[in-house]
Amino acid sequence: MKNKILALAVSALLIPTVNAHNFEDANDAIDYRKAGFSLIRYQFGDMAAMMKGKKEFELTVFQTRAANLAALAKIPHEGFIAGSDKGDTEALAKIWSNKADFDTKMTTFQENAVKLDLAAQTGDKKQIKQAFGNTGKSCKGCHDMYKKD
Amino acid sequence: MKNKILALAVSALLIPTVNAHNFEDANDAIDYRKAGFSLIRYQFGDMAAMMKGKKEFELTVFQTRAANLAALAKIPHEGFIAGSDKGDTEALAKIWSNKADFDTKMTTFQENAVKLDLAAQTGDKKQIKQAFGNTGKSCKGCHDMYKKD
Repeated sequence: MKNKILALAVSALLIPTVNAHNFEDANDAIDYRKAGFSLIRYQFGDMAAMMKGKKEFELTVFQTRAANLAALAKIPHEGFIAGSDKGDTEALAKIWSNKADFDTKMTTFQENAVKLDLAAQTGDKKQIKQAFGNTGKSCKGCHDMYKKD
Repeated sequence: MKNKILALAVSALLIPTVNAHNFEDANDAIDYRKAGFSLIRYQFGDMAAMMKGKKEFELTVFQTRAANLAALAKIPHEGFIAGSDKGDTEALAKIWSNKADFDTKMTTFQENAVKLDLAAQTGDKKQIKQAFGNTGKSCKGCHDMYKKD
């Protein structure tokens, strides 16, 4: 039952990705996704510092970071347009030869970020820790496969 | 009554701005807010094209843009740290000599973006048009005063 409620909450918070993009060219798309990732990294980095005890854990700050992350996680996907493996990017060309897998990994990341947001809202450290770990894993899982070292 | 419900919904959707930032220096803060503004511009630009009839109005796309904008509107404010008027930025120094006014304008923008998100969810074109206009005005009002030409 709890899982069912969580699933419903997650689906309600998920916003469909827009397929019809408006980028002028591949560089424009690359800039867009990089801007998204830089903001994601900032939210995640601050949460990581709190989780690792490098800075004081403040629940309200953590909640803001988690809410921002859940929203920002939806941004970069749109920027992975065909042909945007060329340019100032660390994205590997195999993203586009494995597009279905990449899309699934992106969706999993978005879902995990929403679950982290929901966990943060409960204030329960155990739930937060688990959801934070899952979110980190979905970053790493995609980077290991599709991002230059 | 309707306004009261709207006010409640807006306050529920508003996430407090984090005051304790984690920027290494002013340049880091400038990059952060610029990344936020670039993503905001993209959402807004696509909605503007739809509102002006330059591209077909698709409600689901508009709703996604509006939801993204409402979330992204919360991002740049944190990047306006003291001393970050120096650097690769169009932000004018008077932001910091009029900080209370600037903060109010930023909050108004965030609120208007949330109202646009809520209007988009209704699907009512008249509400959308009004809320979109108000959001645009709150961009312009701040730019006219605090952004280099």
